Amino acid sequence: MPRAVIGRLSLYLRELEAFERRGETTVSSSLLGSALGINDAQVRKDLACFGQFGRPGIGYRIAELIRALRQILGIDRDWPTAIIGVGNLGRALLRYRGFRNRGFHIVALFDNDPKKIGQTVGGLVVQPLERLGEVAEELGLRLAILTVPGEAAGRVAELAAGCGIRGLLNFAPVTLTVPEPLSVISVDLSIQLENLAYRVLHEPNGGEAITD
Amino acid sequence: MPRAVIGRLSLYLRELEAFERRGETTVSSSLLGSALGINDAQVRKDLACFGQFGRPGIGYRIAELIRALRQILGIDRDWPTAIIGVGNLGRALLRYRGFRNRGFHIVALFDNDPKKIGQTVGGLVVQPLERLGEVAEELGLRLAILTVPGEAAGRVAELAAGCGIRGLLNFAPVTLTVPEPLSVISVDLSIQLENLAYRVLHEPNGGEAITD
Repeated sequence: MPRAVIGRLSLYLRELEAFERRGETTVSSSLLGSALGINDAQVRKDLACFGQFGRPGIGYRIAELIRALRQILGIDRDWPTAIIGVGNLGRALLRYRGFRNRGFHIVALFDNDPKKIGQTVGGLVVQPLERLGEVAEELGLRLAILTVPGEAAGRVAELAAGCGIRGLLNFAPVTLTVPEPLSVISVDLSIQLENLAYRVLHEPNGGEAITD
Repeated sequence: MPRAVIGRLSLYLRELEAFERRGETTVSSSLLGSALGINDAQVRKDLACFGQFGRPGIGYRIAELIRALRQILGIDRDWPTAIIGVGNLGRALLRYRGFRNRGFHIVALFDNDPKKIGQTVGGLVVQPLERLGEVAEELGLRLAILTVPGEAAGRVAELAAGCGIRGLLNFAPVTLTVPEPLSVISVDLSIQLENLAYRVLHEPNGGEAITD
């Protein structure tokens, strides 16, 4: 399944939840797409990849589609998640409310700086990286957020893979080559700013683009 | 130009800079792509969109291609940039070294919280949002990083557009509908984690994906 489709599923889910909060029970593909700037044919095509959700003359039943999308995306469960690298960005992400709302609970912090190990940050004690395997097993960790410097990221990703971590959200500005079966999504914030600068220079009409 | 191509230009640039640091002067399309998991035909096709850079039997001249890509991406200049919303994420991004390296200098901070206004954070005084227009003109601000809560993001984006801001990197987890000619790139961190959870559940072999 193309990553862009999966990214759009998350957006559809957010829109559907907004419709539900407003008391709606059904929604058409064109209404669902319009707030996101996605046309109705694309909405129908994306959703048809995962099942037969729409009904002619009715549209999508919101509660049913929310349930299905949460299951497809895997956020119908809790994901205990670690943050590796307790610097400024790691601390900010620990306090980011958007994660918990989607089932991602930060339950462990790791660093290799002796000055940070043992500190309590946001109610969690920073643990040494050597304990990652033990803690991962104890807490059932499968996801980790990597906020270490670029030069350390490769080594820590290898370590995480060996400790049973299956997915890494990497903020270090490097391309990681990681062993299977680890999945990595890299968010390079300076690349986002570069893309934005390009658009300001070359796309005078502006508009919205969603990172997917 | 598709956004994915622009995202890959940033990645090519990073690889080229790494080659240059290692003392190389030319590089083939296959070598350039290999560290990024992109095949040589794709590399040639992407770069051919912007000019005739490669030379048969030689490959790409690294210094020349770096200069061209920096110009295309608009990072051959300085971009004074504001952070709007001085919470945890805003403060972390203020200290993020990756921005300054690419010419993005955080030169102003804005918030609407009276307790924050007037505070000095990272050497900058937090200013009230009402001063955005004045400061934007004074400092030549065209880019801003938006780290305000979701419910405030739409209003602040409107305000920024009216103050001459041309590009917004939006971290609020909402889809913004913004007036031309404002360009917005939204980085929704919980969507990235959702995509990662999907891949852990459905793509057992893992692998790397670069947000583009």
